[in-house]
Amino acid sequence: MAKDQLVIFDTTLRDGEQSPGASMTRDEKVRIAKMLEKMGVDVIEAGFAIASQGDFESVRAVAEAVQTSRICSLARSAKKDIERAGEALKPAALSRIHTFIATSPIHMDYKLRMKPDQVVDEAVRAVTTARGLTDDVEFSCEDASRSEFDFLCRIIEQVIKAGASTINLPDTVGYAEPEEYGALVHRLMNTIPNADKAVFSVHCHNDLGLAVANSLAAVLQGARQVECTINGLGERAGNASLEEIVMAVRTRADVFPVETRIDATQIVPTSRLVSTVTGFPVQPNKAIVGANAFAHESGIHQDGVLKYRETYEIMRAEDVGWNTNKLVLGKHSGRAAFKARLTELGITFDSDEAFNDAFTRFKDLADKKHEIFDEDLQALVSEVAAPDSGEKYRLLELESHSQTGRKPVARLRLLVNGEDRSVEAEGDGPVDAAFKAVEQVANSQALLKLYSVNAITQGTDSQGEVTVRLEKDNVIVNGNGADTDIIVASVKAYLNALDLLASGNMRTHPQKEGV
Amino acid sequence: MAKDQLVIFDTTLRDGEQSPGASMTRDEKVRIAKMLEKMGVDVIEAGFAIASQGDFESVRAVAEAVQTSRICSLARSAKKDIERAGEALKPAALSRIHTFIATSPIHMDYKLRMKPDQVVDEAVRAVTTARGLTDDVEFSCEDASRSEFDFLCRIIEQVIKAGASTINLPDTVGYAEPEEYGALVHRLMNTIPNADKAVFSVHCHNDLGLAVANSLAAVLQGARQVECTINGLGERAGNASLEEIVMAVRTRADVFPVETRIDATQIVPTSRLVSTVTGFPVQPNKAIVGANAFAHESGIHQDGVLKYRETYEIMRAEDVGWNTNKLVLGKHSGRAAFKARLTELGITFDSDEAFNDAFTRFKDLADKKHEIFDEDLQALVSEVAAPDSGEKYRLLELESHSQTGRKPVARLRLLVNGEDRSVEAEGDGPVDAAFKAVEQVANSQALLKLYSVNAITQGTDSQGEVTVRLEKDNVIVNGNGADTDIIVASVKAYLNALDLLASGNMRTHPQKEGV
Repeated sequence: MAKDQLVIFDTTLRDGEQSPGASMTRDEKVRIAKMLEKMGVDVIEAGFAIASQGDFESVRAVAEAVQTSRICSLARSAKKDIERAGEALKPAALSRIHTFIATSPIHMDYKLRMKPDQVVDEAVRAVTTARGLTDDVEFSCEDASRSEFDFLCRIIEQVIKAGASTINLPDTVGYAEPEEYGALVHRLMNTIPNADKAVFSVHCHNDLGLAVANSLAAVLQGARQVECTINGLGERAGNASLEEIVMAVRTRADVFPVETRIDATQIVPTSRLVSTVTGFPVQPNKAIVGANAFAHESGIHQDGVLKYRETYEIMRAEDVGWNTNKLVLGKHSGRAAFKARLTELGITFDSDEAFNDAFTRFKDLADKKHEIFDEDLQALVSEVAAPDSGEKYRLLELESHSQTGRKPVARLRLLVNGEDRSVEAEGDGPVDAAFKAVEQVANSQALLKLYSVNAITQGTDSQGEVTVRLEKDNVIVNGNGADTDIIVASVKAYLNALDLLASGNMRTHPQKEGV
Repeated sequence: MAKDQLVIFDTTLRDGEQSPGASMTRDEKVRIAKMLEKMGVDVIEAGFAIASQGDFESVRAVAEAVQTSRICSLARSAKKDIERAGEALKPAALSRIHTFIATSPIHMDYKLRMKPDQVVDEAVRAVTTARGLTDDVEFSCEDASRSEFDFLCRIIEQVIKAGASTINLPDTVGYAEPEEYGALVHRLMNTIPNADKAVFSVHCHNDLGLAVANSLAAVLQGARQVECTINGLGERAGNASLEEIVMAVRTRADVFPVETRIDATQIVPTSRLVSTVTGFPVQPNKAIVGANAFAHESGIHQDGVLKYRETYEIMRAEDVGWNTNKLVLGKHSGRAAFKARLTELGITFDSDEAFNDAFTRFKDLADKKHEIFDEDLQALVSEVAAPDSGEKYRLLELESHSQTGRKPVARLRLLVNGEDRSVEAEGDGPVDAAFKAVEQVANSQALLKLYSVNAITQGTDSQGEVTVRLEKDNVIVNGNGADTDIIVASVKAYLNALDLLASGNMRTHPQKEGV
């Protein structure tokens, strides 16, 4: 029996980026988008064009870089939002405008302060405006799972008439339960007279751990698009995980009447890229992409699994991209090999200068580390500051000394707005000493909220990738830095976070009131 | 309407510990068990008594320490397994033996090499033996979700007759889908003639991201016990998360006809303890216990949430124990305050010497760090080696020096089997240099599989908690170390891992063949 296609709509670059501290640069978004395209994602939500100039440029850059996936921008129902989305999407081979308005009583009353009739008018106007700019328009009923059924029927019928071809039902606050959510989708699709003119879609949040289950329950009842993110990234407890949705549908092909276009072997590499770029680690017991997902405790591995694989395995690690493409380059690799591998990873440079900078860093790293993996390259390129990124701080030299019974000391030479500064400080540890030295010139008043290090690959010569989360005046930023020296990596991450705080790229949040 | 009680069966100490690298000492298990008791967990599966001498002693120690939760040990169907479980449980105020055998064709054929009739006989014999040792016996049909329905009915009817009062249906390989799994529970409960004589239970794995949803679907169909773990720890992608099960049932009290005895304000502290002890981080976007679970991106926080809390929140952070009990001790805190706080955390010492050692470490830490949090105390106590733990390596002194352009150097003084050794090495970074120095005396041939650091609390004077995962001859161990100096913490973690490798506490895996 021919199966329906399940449209995979990835919103890692939009809802995923709304995680506090998960912001990505334009170039990082392009790199992730290229991976998503290679993986076969149908629709890539690249951002919320009106949120800031940076968001606008990111949507545009992704629209320019990607050919086979449809590129989408979020837009509230206001005319200026939709026009801004249309503008950002102009270079796209395939484009979609995704507009939304809240439909639950609590949101209409307290956030929108609008009557239901006004909300319907606003929605229809938004879809009509969007259809004037692109042939593919998606409409979302924000907080659908807490909206009144009759009102949902009314507004959905009207927006389909106005030209929306995808109707999305977000469980905005992660409150839904699978049985009732599936039933809602079923009842809507069987009540709305023109329901067959649109693809029904779901967008679930994981506050109660049910995002994937709610999405799949809806698929069983007729939904044919799932909105999801790599690693389940997203606001609060995140969105439905793309990798779990895709592998559940595939592994339980006997239950789900749908198939996706996803090349699952790209799942693990993409998961790693998103984790590296955002600095959000994946916990070892995360399904599909966690380090332990396919690891059995010693003893059982040799027995049960080898004897008859299916006794304890329902998927194979290699099917989702574990253990593929690991070793890539070494110290004897030249410019051509380096460039070729970067191109395969979807990494390109705006200028020869930026490429040369990256190649120099690669050679430095290869001197210290025998085997260079894809993860090392991703980390290395994440560090090459774009020429226009307004880098304020740069580490020139570092000396660190610690000895049992004495206070550790750090001496740093920094370039601060082009000026050469030397600083020295003591601390409770060598990292603390280095951060205190930086603060002698930066004096940021920021609070260190989180500090973590993960080895990028295995072995003692691996680079440590440090994430430093700073908070100041309610703004949270994550700085990243990588080096074989953990103190150097820490300082790089701290300086990166200070740069992000200084850039002050404040954005509009899509769900703020005053649409 | 009075609600049924949902029995919360926590298996963090048994299935959770089966995660590669998540092993816990006896004292750590007791501490976690005390927290689970305080939280109101009904049944604590403390281990698999026959697996090793260490496991046996852990079950016994937990049975001695806990009063109000029922303590359970796993046992295969063999007589010696069950007797060993009964022996370990002797000190328990309330005890349960949990015995199991595989019931799916694939497991019976390839693992057990037994005919169905033999499996039924073996199960009945096991339950009868267990009932001779305790009045509370649970029976599990391993791989129930892939077993034949008629065979399940037959074996369950017989084991209930033999005296099993809890029947557990594990989704051993994480293959189930909620609708079908709920239907299985419903059909079994309505077909087996003596089904009303037992509590039906579920035990779900998260390989497809559906462990919580499968458990809850079963609850809607009549299951009244859920087996789960803190942070969803467990083999491969882990088990159903206790915190998600408890909060889903509570938040959606309109849907679920059950209530639990859990004090949810203990959830976050317990989650942190488990994360500290195992060295398994919780990812920021983990539901309920992730750092971002209740964090909204700046901008929306002030608006939507404050205006009308329920627009974007379905639970309150404080309900699950965020922001409670943070600051506890400082440098002026004395022995009494220190002891009192430890007692509240369920930490006791076998000897005055061990307490004095911990207090000295506390004073050292308080000199370097202004505010001491519960997490600091947990990390500090995790480090106090039990007198009988066979510590082979101890760090006496460390000097570390690194400078841009030169190779970092580490000099260490170590106590190795009581002998004072000085070593020195260069490396690619200061941590690498220190590890290489250790290896000059240890020469372990172990592979470094994972290295990670997390700050235990906020601020630059926080202790870094380092996890080092080593692998040798197919055995994986996680070593932990904490210190305000990251190099010192790294060496402690490395030495701890070497000690664990040297101790060679190899265990029998419950699901290995040859029952």
